[in-house]
Amino acid sequence: MKPSNDEPLVMMAHGGGGRKMQQLLEEVVFPILSDESLNEGEDAAVMRDFVGNLALTTDSFVIQPLVFPGGDIGKLAVCGTINDLAMRGAKPLYLTMGLIIEEGFRLNLLKDILTSASECARDANVRIVTGDTKVVERGNADGLYINTAGVGIVPEGCEVSISGAMSGDVIVVNGYVGDHGIAVLGGRDEQSFEMNVLSDCAPLHNLVSEMLEVGGVHALRDPTRGGIAAALNEMAQASNVQFDVFESSMPVREEVRAVCEMLGLDPFYVANEGKLVASISQGKADEVLEVMRGNDLGKDSRIVGRVLNGRRGLVNLLTSVGSKRILRMPSGEQLPRIC
Amino acid sequence: MKPSNDEPLVMMAHGGGGRKMQQLLEEVVFPILSDESLNEGEDAAVMRDFVGNLALTTDSFVIQPLVFPGGDIGKLAVCGTINDLAMRGAKPLYLTMGLIIEEGFRLNLLKDILTSASECARDANVRIVTGDTKVVERGNADGLYINTAGVGIVPEGCEVSISGAMSGDVIVVNGYVGDHGIAVLGGRDEQSFEMNVLSDCAPLHNLVSEMLEVGGVHALRDPTRGGIAAALNEMAQASNVQFDVFESSMPVREEVRAVCEMLGLDPFYVANEGKLVASISQGKADEVLEVMRGNDLGKDSRIVGRVLNGRRGLVNLLTSVGSKRILRMPSGEQLPRIC
Repeated sequence: MKPSNDEPLVMMAHGGGGRKMQQLLEEVVFPILSDESLNEGEDAAVMRDFVGNLALTTDSFVIQPLVFPGGDIGKLAVCGTINDLAMRGAKPLYLTMGLIIEEGFRLNLLKDILTSASECARDANVRIVTGDTKVVERGNADGLYINTAGVGIVPEGCEVSISGAMSGDVIVVNGYVGDHGIAVLGGRDEQSFEMNVLSDCAPLHNLVSEMLEVGGVHALRDPTRGGIAAALNEMAQASNVQFDVFESSMPVREEVRAVCEMLGLDPFYVANEGKLVASISQGKADEVLEVMRGNDLGKDSRIVGRVLNGRRGLVNLLTSVGSKRILRMPSGEQLPRIC
Repeated sequence: MKPSNDEPLVMMAHGGGGRKMQQLLEEVVFPILSDESLNEGEDAAVMRDFVGNLALTTDSFVIQPLVFPGGDIGKLAVCGTINDLAMRGAKPLYLTMGLIIEEGFRLNLLKDILTSASECARDANVRIVTGDTKVVERGNADGLYINTAGVGIVPEGCEVSISGAMSGDVIVVNGYVGDHGIAVLGGRDEQSFEMNVLSDCAPLHNLVSEMLEVGGVHALRDPTRGGIAAALNEMAQASNVQFDVFESSMPVREEVRAVCEMLGLDPFYVANEGKLVASISQGKADEVLEVMRGNDLGKDSRIVGRVLNGRRGLVNLLTSVGSKRILRMPSGEQLPRIC
């Protein structure tokens, strides 16, 4: 839809550090993100009395389109950064938000995206405490890029990491894989795909915290770019173990499978934004699974494989007909600009 | 200069989360940035036992050109984020680095820029502990955008902020203003300007820490976008005081003044990247100035004005002929894409 002539648009001056920028911040950005620390106008936010192990992460989001079935770049930016913290067992506390906006961007769309980010952060009990706004000339930045960095606190004694998978563990995922990538693809070309797949974009820190409380969770990874295949390979590599994954156990929606078949994609290589892979000690697996299934974001959790000493870094896919093939690390990404 | 045909270039697959990205990270990014925490391949870095008041900031850098007299976008990104932390009195500790790279970007230029960032961080005793790499199609991102977020620790009892300026204080700057903007302008159009102005791009945290040790420093701000005029206005506004600034005391290089006159620019509105404005109690000013002048980044420090109760948020410029005019907040920025 073309913007109407009198619709307010972002101008170069909105990124110039002067009155126009102050106006954009004070009238649009700060009221929507609504954190006391933003209103102070300082170059850095100060949070008093942090005591403990600090987790720090960052992600830039360049997804196209900016709004897609099940979410938008604002929600995605908040969830993606929360999830990176959660994969270290950290409780997410503070986010930064850097906006790179294309000149002529619709101010109303910016408001919608910031509102979505703000609501997601508030629901997750995470504060957006500081930010930065740049504007680049028309033709750059595809409308909007967002960078979020996140600070969290790792509970004392928590040692979960990508390298913790141990022989004897089982591998668990918390639901259907490939939804995010296929939903975004649908958002790119609404004419060609009539489907009901929504992005799984969601903050996983509460689910993770419930899992960690049970114990036995040795390794975590969120399968974003590169899909479940990349996450499994990275974890097997970092942990120096072999994974045997049962192809038929891996949950893939019929609709996702159908679109993938049509386009020659493999759902195991399609991005997720609300999924995790966990390596869990066999003795604790049932208990952890029960807790996961009690959380909305884990209700379709299941065991999809097992960890062996075997050949280090190898991920085998055991097919339903009893054959075995290697689930390789992807080279690039089947669907660029997916996050 | 056009890249030669066999020069290695960044490809879309380098941002895809697969083997190509692993290769870029393990062969290029990690060795150059060389922090143990990067090699762990985790989604978030964990830093043990943080105790104290935490400062958090972020900045995206979209400067054109990427390499300019006196620096490049890598050095700028590290300095800019360190300086935002320093303005709260924080000791900078950890940086994140988010790269958004244009497909076809010269890998050798990426290496140079990362090397420059890494050297600057190492000199400043700051670790780059986590990052993110995205690649966007040709025609986007003007080659490279960098986002850096920074974590620092604020010493117990340190209360320096933009809102601390008090009636009776003197206003100090640490050297010549306008260098960065004019140097970048020179870098954009080397044919038109033959000059020797270098960007002042530098990390100010050590200078600030020496100043704070003396005491009496009530407010700090780094005059980046919008120049010294924006910084003075923001500080006067946030502190609810009036500033009287002596035009002839404000240090401006002859060459910067000449270029500004030729182009109809005002050096007070031109960006800096290694300058600070400080509001200091009169009783401590001489002692602070002496310490500042003993630091290479403060050797041209001087008093440029005074703080009055007067009209809140007003910045007066007292000219050498005895007249007075208002130094207004800029509207946008005279020179877009300056940082």
